[in-house]
Amino acid sequence: MNTADLGLPVDVPSTALFTDQYELTMLQAALRAGTAERRSVFEVFTRRLPNGRRYGVVAGTGRVLDAVENFRFDEGVLGFLRERGIVGEETLDWLAGYRFSGDIWGYPEGEVYFPGSPILRVEGSFAECVLLETVVLSILNHDSAIAAAASRMSSAAGDRPLIEMGARRTHELSAVAAARAAYVGGFASTSDLAAGFRYGIPTVGTSAHAFTLLHDRERDAFRAQVDSMGRGTTLLVDTYDVTEAVRTAVEVAGPELGAVRIDSGDLLLVAHRVRQQLDELGAVNTKIIVTSDLDEYAIASLAAAPVDAYGVGTQLVTGSGYPTASMVYKLVARAESADPAAPLVPVAKKSSGGKVSVGGRKWAARRLDEYGVAEAEVIGTGPVPRELADRQLLVQLVKGGHVVAREPLDVPRRRHAAARAGLPLSATQLSRGEPVIPTEYLHGEAGS
Amino acid sequence: MNTADLGLPVDVPSTALFTDQYELTMLQAALRAGTAERRSVFEVFTRRLPNGRRYGVVAGTGRVLDAVENFRFDEGVLGFLRERGIVGEETLDWLAGYRFSGDIWGYPEGEVYFPGSPILRVEGSFAECVLLETVVLSILNHDSAIAAAASRMSSAAGDRPLIEMGARRTHELSAVAAARAAYVGGFASTSDLAAGFRYGIPTVGTSAHAFTLLHDRERDAFRAQVDSMGRGTTLLVDTYDVTEAVRTAVEVAGPELGAVRIDSGDLLLVAHRVRQQLDELGAVNTKIIVTSDLDEYAIASLAAAPVDAYGVGTQLVTGSGYPTASMVYKLVARAESADPAAPLVPVAKKSSGGKVSVGGRKWAARRLDEYGVAEAEVIGTGPVPRELADRQLLVQLVKGGHVVAREPLDVPRRRHAAARAGLPLSATQLSRGEPVIPTEYLHGEAGS
Repeated sequence: MNTADLGLPVDVPSTALFTDQYELTMLQAALRAGTAERRSVFEVFTRRLPNGRRYGVVAGTGRVLDAVENFRFDEGVLGFLRERGIVGEETLDWLAGYRFSGDIWGYPEGEVYFPGSPILRVEGSFAECVLLETVVLSILNHDSAIAAAASRMSSAAGDRPLIEMGARRTHELSAVAAARAAYVGGFASTSDLAAGFRYGIPTVGTSAHAFTLLHDRERDAFRAQVDSMGRGTTLLVDTYDVTEAVRTAVEVAGPELGAVRIDSGDLLLVAHRVRQQLDELGAVNTKIIVTSDLDEYAIASLAAAPVDAYGVGTQLVTGSGYPTASMVYKLVARAESADPAAPLVPVAKKSSGGKVSVGGRKWAARRLDEYGVAEAEVIGTGPVPRELADRQLLVQLVKGGHVVAREPLDVPRRRHAAARAGLPLSATQLSRGEPVIPTEYLHGEAGS
Repeated sequence: MNTADLGLPVDVPSTALFTDQYELTMLQAALRAGTAERRSVFEVFTRRLPNGRRYGVVAGTGRVLDAVENFRFDEGVLGFLRERGIVGEETLDWLAGYRFSGDIWGYPEGEVYFPGSPILRVEGSFAECVLLETVVLSILNHDSAIAAAASRMSSAAGDRPLIEMGARRTHELSAVAAARAAYVGGFASTSDLAAGFRYGIPTVGTSAHAFTLLHDRERDAFRAQVDSMGRGTTLLVDTYDVTEAVRTAVEVAGPELGAVRIDSGDLLLVAHRVRQQLDELGAVNTKIIVTSDLDEYAIASLAAAPVDAYGVGTQLVTGSGYPTASMVYKLVARAESADPAAPLVPVAKKSSGGKVSVGGRKWAARRLDEYGVAEAEVIGTGPVPRELADRQLLVQLVKGGHVVAREPLDVPRRRHAAARAGLPLSATQLSRGEPVIPTEYLHGEAGS
């Protein structure tokens, strides 16, 4: 399957231009030096979680697989590189035949992660792996940041559904990926039609103030909406006066009115008043949807309010303060040649300024306590201890260039809920703190 | 010109799915109610600048024009809407013939803006205008946020060039738009090949730690890079020991070495040491490029350091703390019918929670003081005072559905530099403060 077959809005003939120029010039230099084919291992990890966060959420893995499959240098791309003189003919010839033929392992999408977790491991020749750096990081950094915010919000919302409404606050295609990541993180639906089209996420909609203002009276607007959408629709009740609007809404739609939306004011107070008014009017099943710059803290503060659903925009698509996940893509081991028998040598940048990396091809496992609750993220480069063998986190995603782990989006969504439920209870505290479980390095290979 | 003709990476057959579902259901309700054709005016504005910022930067206008031209409901899109039951057949028929046929006026791209500035004004029938809300806001909110950060950074950098390197920290297509907005805001180049391909922005690249680690010795890596790229290349000198790396770099490339890059450590200190060492080695023309989580404050703090260029990633593509510009798209006036002679009635949501909007179709002008420096953003709904007639800010972008103001990207880039230079000097102070000029409403139409 090629992403180009999937149509809008990711209908790009190739992902190969989502690449920083230095990846191509490093390739060219390595080709000339005879080092390009050295067997190499790159890993994606983050040195730290955003300040105070207890866990991270892996998201975007499915999009990474699409991007890798679709990473081709067609004539248009090659012509651009030639015209700009970015690399020479020999390198262009090599790129024309490019297909990733290596292996990729990774934390499955929806899994939680911690500082140092080897979220993705890309193995192959240096040449074929180095080219994927930018596109892999773009996807994982963006999508994981959104999923982490979504997870905190869905945890704060409990059983009440969350609607993703942030498309207008971010780049039009980020919005589509954000809706996808939000769904993985526990959101129920999105207002973004492109996300519905592309990923099959349930879409929903209410009404805007403009619709009320278009009409001569609020009553006319409500009548028009109910005539068109039926009594089950959601009427926006805060264009003029909320109390009057709620009365009008129930008069127009009857007590079968589906829901009302409140988009401004002190939501806690207004929700209580509106609930009481709806009940008094006999609209006991009419739901209340609140929107208006909600984040996980605002959602939590409304836990005791008579609210049935939350619409979240800005704070979701901007990662609730942390719009990127600060993951890096680092060479951690390489051999002296392409020979599969040549030993892998761990490599790592020496620190100058705190940017320590741990060399070596890694495994990871989550150790549980006697009650089955996670107690440590264990990362190592040697053999996996027997007691952790069935707790390993990395799964094979690509084998010899072929994607082997595609899955429908409901799978990572359920996986995330299960992974979060397996963490200590303090994982879902919203207050700032340390990662909820420590990262332990087995054999202490730091810098080896 | 259609964006689809422009190829990668915005090759999507239509932008019509970058739409929130409620726009379509409002359309359907208005069609049935007979109000869909009412002549309407929508405006894009922001109620406030990000906390402490002195001015905003309009960016994305050119992309908005592409999106509006490309906003079509083809069979694939219509089939999706039908299958999901989002709107009925009558509405689908209307959408099949959709072409925006109205007028769009706006602040030209690169111009600065302030709270309340009518950055874009979209005029036509309610039906044709309401559909554009999400895609217009997505583009302007994202691109303007990035351009504002870029402008602060370019102001802090003075004459030293800035390189955009943030692709890996944001969604792969946001990255392309971010490179474009950064260029408008004063950046000189980008590392993102897709941005070079799509918008003709100059691209540059250096080398990564992985390239050094791939080789048996740092010297081998430097030799390979110089053999491939020539002596004018930029060598990365902080993989192991900076002093030794600089010595090796000059030994390998000679004093003609183009530049060295430093990506970690105390950049101020390291830059001074490296400059001294390069000079002692006779490499007096070798430049120093610094990277490593720079923002406008870090750039300003390096003003006295011997640095020749800055590479900026994360903080640029995340808007340096403000990843979205919080612009809204509001109905501000509408007539009782489609008749061009029917008077426009100003409309606005009544406040409940501070979300005040000012009704009426607006003009804007920047009043200058006796020295030609901006002193107020004047916004009004009545006739334009004679003394402000030639200081008006809105220009026509679309006329009767046709784009009339396309321009190459260097034009908004120069326009921004000129607009910023026309503000009071305190505009470019990095410290927090109020908008550098006040917004004045003429005729005091608030809420009228």
